[in-house]
Amino acid sequence: MAQPLPAAALDQLFRSARTPNDWTDEPVAEETLRALYDLYKWGPTSANSSPARFVWVRSAEGKSTLASLAMEGNRPKILAAPVTVIIGHDLDFPDTMPKLFPARGEMMRQWFRHPGVAEITAVRNGSLQGAYLIIAARALGLDCGPMSGFDNAAVDKAFFAGTKIQSNFICSLGHGKPESIFPRNPRLAFEEAGRFA
Amino acid sequence: MAQPLPAAALDQLFRSARTPNDWTDEPVAEETLRALYDLYKWGPTSANSSPARFVWVRSAEGKSTLASLAMEGNRPKILAAPVTVIIGHDLDFPDTMPKLFPARGEMMRQWFRHPGVAEITAVRNGSLQGAYLIIAARALGLDCGPMSGFDNAAVDKAFFAGTKIQSNFICSLGHGKPESIFPRNPRLAFEEAGRFA
Repeated sequence: MAQPLPAAALDQLFRSARTPNDWTDEPVAEETLRALYDLYKWGPTSANSSPARFVWVRSAEGKSTLASLAMEGNRPKILAAPVTVIIGHDLDFPDTMPKLFPARGEMMRQWFRHPGVAEITAVRNGSLQGAYLIIAARALGLDCGPMSGFDNAAVDKAFFAGTKIQSNFICSLGHGKPESIFPRNPRLAFEEAGRFA
Repeated sequence: MAQPLPAAALDQLFRSARTPNDWTDEPVAEETLRALYDLYKWGPTSANSSPARFVWVRSAEGKSTLASLAMEGNRPKILAAPVTVIIGHDLDFPDTMPKLFPARGEMMRQWFRHPGVAEITAVRNGSLQGAYLIIAARALGLDCGPMSGFDNAAVDKAFFAGTKIQSNFICSLGHGKPESIFPRNPRLAFEEAGRFA
C-alpha cells in the first residue's frame, strides 16, 4: 500500500505552488520538455484515448504569433516565458485507438466515432491531460502559468490548420518571478464544494 | 528554484500508478477525503473559479443508486470500492466569484455570465479539478479508478436535482487489488502528440 508523499512534495505540487505573472530569463531545456511529456503521458484517460495534442511554442516567431492572438493582459506573459504550450484535443483521436488500445482498438475506434462521443471525450480527457501536464511540470520543478484568455478559433487556424485539433488552453512554463505572484485567493470549504451520499 | 521530486515520488504519481479494476476492503477514512480535498483545492483554475462540485458516494444506498446508472462493466467496481466520487461542475459557478476572487468578484461574475462562457469554463476547469483530485489522491497513497461509462443525465437527476450542476466523470478511490490491473497500454511518442513552434 502506497504511503503519502512527504509534506514538502505535497507543498511543491499543490500547497505552495503558485501561478506567476512574469518570468525569469532562465531557459527550459528541450530535454526537460521531453522528460515532462514522458511523465504526464502516463496519466489516465478514457480507454487510454489520450486525445490531447501539444504545440510547444518557444521560437520568437511562434511566441509573437501566439501573443498576438491572446488577450492583452496575457501577451507579455507569453513573450516573457521561455515556452508556452498550447494544449489542444484531436477530434480525430478515435483513429489512434488501434495503436493506443491494441486489445480492443477497432471496437473502441467505432465506439468513439458515435455522434457526439468524440467531442465530449476529447474535451474532458484533453483537459485532464492538461492538468497532468501542470502538476507534472511542478513535480519537475517548473512553474506554470495556465491561461484561457485567447482567441481559440484564431489559434486553431494559426497552429492546427488542416487538422481536427481544437485548442483548449495554453500554459507558460519556466521559472516565475516570485514578486509577480498575486496574493492567494480563498477556496471553497469542503461542504461548499460537495457532500457525502 | 524548485528541484524535481525524487524518482519514487514521480513513480507514485505517474510512472508506476495504475488503474485497478477491483478493490480491497481497506476503508478510506473521512479525514482522508477531507485531507484530499484540502490538497487538490489549491490546483489552478481560470480566475480561481473552481467550478467543480463533488458527491462522495460511500453509503450502501448511494453506491447502489450510482451503480444502477453505470455501464454494466463499471457496476461491480462502484459497489466494491469504499468510495466513488462524482465530479460535476456547477453552471451557476459565476455567483461564487465575489467569494473566490474578492478583488474583482463582481466583474468576474459578469464576465462568466456572458453567453456560452460559463459552460466551456465549467467543463474545462471542472475537468482540470478532476485531474488534480486523481493526482492528489495518488500523492496521498490512494488508488484511483476514473470512469465515464454511466448515464450522465440520470446521475444528474439522482444526485444534483434542483441545481445547475452537471456530472462530468466518476472516480473510485481506495486500495486496488494488484491482480485486477490490466497490462499497460502504450502512449503516443512525443512527436506523435505534438511539435515545437
